[in-house]
Amino acid sequence: MEHQGILVVVSGFSGAGKGTLMKALLKKYDNYALSISATTRKPRDGEMDGREYFFKTVEEFEKLIDDDALIEYAKYVDNYYGTPKEYVENQLAAGKDVILEIEIQGALKVKAKRPDTVLIFVTPPSAEELKKRLIGRGTETMDVIKSRLRRANEEAKGMNGYDYVLINDDLDKCVDELHSIILGEHSAAVRNETFIRKITSELKGIMKGE
Amino acid sequence: MEHQGILVVVSGFSGAGKGTLMKALLKKYDNYALSISATTRKPRDGEMDGREYFFKTVEEFEKLIDDDALIEYAKYVDNYYGTPKEYVENQLAAGKDVILEIEIQGALKVKAKRPDTVLIFVTPPSAEELKKRLIGRGTETMDVIKSRLRRANEEAKGMNGYDYVLINDDLDKCVDELHSIILGEHSAAVRNETFIRKITSELKGIMKGE
Repeated sequence: MEHQGILVVVSGFSGAGKGTLMKALLKKYDNYALSISATTRKPRDGEMDGREYFFKTVEEFEKLIDDDALIEYAKYVDNYYGTPKEYVENQLAAGKDVILEIEIQGALKVKAKRPDTVLIFVTPPSAEELKKRLIGRGTETMDVIKSRLRRANEEAKGMNGYDYVLINDDLDKCVDELHSIILGEHSAAVRNETFIRKITSELKGIMKGE
Repeated sequence: MEHQGILVVVSGFSGAGKGTLMKALLKKYDNYALSISATTRKPRDGEMDGREYFFKTVEEFEKLIDDDALIEYAKYVDNYYGTPKEYVENQLAAGKDVILEIEIQGALKVKAKRPDTVLIFVTPPSAEELKKRLIGRGTETMDVIKSRLRRANEEAKGMNGYDYVLINDDLDKCVDELHSIILGEHSAAVRNETFIRKITSELKGIMKGE
């Protein structure tokens, strides 16, 4: 591959449609790899090690922490969740743009560690629409919906820390916008400093040789 | 239109293929408008006022300067060239992304005045390729080619001031990358601060009303 891939973090309100968006993106374009998280929670029916998650014992997970083998990790309830470095690095080196779908705290940790990470926040076009989508799922109690809205209320405060805000109104349009953001980022001057140095020095060489 | 357009400055080495690139971009996508420069030089055969240039007398041009009606201007040899604000503002307000094709000094002036301008530098993949393209045109003497390479050598020093460096290796690919850069920029968090404030305050409202 010609280029190193870009690390992209996608976060967003619960109900923003991240899952559907990721599936559609990976179906339409082949330059992406989804990062796979490691976790200490038990696999559920149908989940496969290395597909949904890398399933680890607490001892194994804590060894990953000690070895600095995770890009970020957090503990929810009694389980660890984290992003193994090795898988991400291998995919990036193979030229894949790697997408981490993690929440806001993790996103900011990744950005602090790797400032060249692109942070994208996915949101519905309005709070009313978010509420509608959460109710529309029909799978949650009003208590759960309210707690998600409360969480969204908290998360909104972090949106300013993201590089991009992607408004998910129409799925097809949103997939193309997401792809454009990442494709465009490949041309960012800060990601092409080696090229700039190279062509600058080549031009100097040609001038001297004239 | 839903959105205000974005002001985009495209610069690049002579021989980088900017002209062909612009033509292909405008042919493929309909959200762009090319800015039209004002100049005091005389129209050449086939040039039409308001198409290639807005042709002005020196007095008219200097009045534009005095009225602060130009985004940037410069004097080459004995002629003024500049970018009239009004045309650009009207197109931006109509939701068009407006492209200015100007050289590096003008580009940096525009960015200083309007920091939300996107600066894109178009370059061939190597200095050798640039030289080949300049020779390949067959329309210039070696002296002209050398003077262009010398100028390119100067211009390369300014590449770092651009937001994006677009490597023009394959025209179709380059058109799509250019479009992606601009489409992606529409989702930049800094361009969506009004939306962020709006949804944040809506969520707060919903929480209070629950």
